[in-house]
Amino acid sequence: MAKSIHKICIFGVGLIGGSFACAYKKAFPEVEVIGAGRNAKKLQQAQELGVIDSFSIDLAEALDGVEVLVIGVPVGSIESVFEQVRPHLKDTVIITDVGSTKSSVVNSATKILAEKITNFVPGHPIAGTEKSGAEAAFAELFNNRRVILTPSEDTNSEAIGCVTNMWQACGAEVVEMSVEHHDEVLAATSHLPHMLAFSLVDTLSRMNDKKEIFKYAAGGFRDFTRIASSSPEMWQDICLANADALVDVINLFQSDLTRLTKAIETGDKETILNIFSRAKTSRDKFCNE
Amino acid sequence: MAKSIHKICIFGVGLIGGSFACAYKKAFPEVEVIGAGRNAKKLQQAQELGVIDSFSIDLAEALDGVEVLVIGVPVGSIESVFEQVRPHLKDTVIITDVGSTKSSVVNSATKILAEKITNFVPGHPIAGTEKSGAEAAFAELFNNRRVILTPSEDTNSEAIGCVTNMWQACGAEVVEMSVEHHDEVLAATSHLPHMLAFSLVDTLSRMNDKKEIFKYAAGGFRDFTRIASSSPEMWQDICLANADALVDVINLFQSDLTRLTKAIETGDKETILNIFSRAKTSRDKFCNE
Repeated sequence: MAKSIHKICIFGVGLIGGSFACAYKKAFPEVEVIGAGRNAKKLQQAQELGVIDSFSIDLAEALDGVEVLVIGVPVGSIESVFEQVRPHLKDTVIITDVGSTKSSVVNSATKILAEKITNFVPGHPIAGTEKSGAEAAFAELFNNRRVILTPSEDTNSEAIGCVTNMWQACGAEVVEMSVEHHDEVLAATSHLPHMLAFSLVDTLSRMNDKKEIFKYAAGGFRDFTRIASSSPEMWQDICLANADALVDVINLFQSDLTRLTKAIETGDKETILNIFSRAKTSRDKFCNE
Repeated sequence: MAKSIHKICIFGVGLIGGSFACAYKKAFPEVEVIGAGRNAKKLQQAQELGVIDSFSIDLAEALDGVEVLVIGVPVGSIESVFEQVRPHLKDTVIITDVGSTKSSVVNSATKILAEKITNFVPGHPIAGTEKSGAEAAFAELFNNRRVILTPSEDTNSEAIGCVTNMWQACGAEVVEMSVEHHDEVLAATSHLPHMLAFSLVDTLSRMNDKKEIFKYAAGGFRDFTRIASSSPEMWQDICLANADALVDVINLFQSDLTRLTKAIETGDKETILNIFSRAKTSRDKFCNE
């Protein structure tokens, strides 16, 4: 039987944590959603926006009586949050996170949560915008999006079921995979594109000083670089937390780009057309799925 | 005094040529817009869609009595179009194009148009979508977009004025710059991002066979890769026509990306944060301009 939830705590009420709060409160208006974190002013704002019901920066208070703790902080801060919450966690509290990388989070959880790790269900909603903060949160963010859970063999099955139900109530489709597969897939589809967008805009901005090149950028450039408006601090955390998988896929990309560049230099039309055609076919297919 | 226009011919009624026709006819309903090209079926469709008033695949007929010829074909076909139209061009006909690269086009014009080159105003509207064909054309495509003209010192000033007026009537802002500056700026802001998007999706599609990675791609990935749905044939033409400037900027990008990769490998937080922060600042500024 599913666990009955009366109160949940969200530590870190930003875009993801805040949108989860909005979506969950919409599905279960009777459940109390309390915000926790270090910044009382931001939590106050989140409460005023109606994103959370109440908040406390005192963790004993914030975690008192909760059945579930959702950690919504960036991956670089998760270990520190585990340390802060650990003394206040009853044995039955289910813990989950929304971090963009999973190996680093699971390593921290193993180290800090100790025997309570069986109640920890590592999670990652594949959703977001380039904006940050509770003021950017909205209940529909997870509608028809996937949430990946990466539990281990030892994870309490009731905890997995509970976290699955929570995300499904927020409109998401929940899938399970291994930590390693998650980090490899996300390195390719999310972390690598962010690196390319940040790096491209940085390269061009240094050219721009002399040539006003951004003035002549069109709509395609705007879409292509949207993710370069994401939070630098959050992405610094992510790329360091998933460095191994990310560096592998950057190197793969670089060698493919070098092959394309050689084809352009030598006028090898066939190679160029093959690359572009395969890409268009895949992209069109992906968008129609 | 501005030249009085009664009839214009558009050779190549695709997304750009067709949208120009729509916008121009909206501004000057009394001017006859005749389509020309090789594919009678597509021209027939464009006429049925109301994009052009009439069409002919007989160039003597299509060019009879026109004051302006707009060449709307991809850059790889422009030289062949110059050859086809040359025998039918009266000395007073103003010629312009919409090609994405300008050195290659000007070289072809010099070779083929000979003394008529003084009537040729090389042009490039910085606008487009990932779609192709007259069925994707719409009159508002150039609203508040820039059109770059790259005339030489020898270009007839009446021709420059006429082409400027035409684009302004379509809602665009017209700027002039040198051929070299154009090709360098567009290599950076348009051609390079297209190469990155095509190359990324190709790399991932080969990984995808094993790992279903596209399934876990989010909205950021969709925006980032939109330009990889562009026409492979058109982009093959563009990257070969602008190979020198493009290869230079790809190499610059690759060395910057290598620097970022090294920083990720060595955990050099400061370098990573500097790159991401400069990029975010530039991108936010560009989007608010």
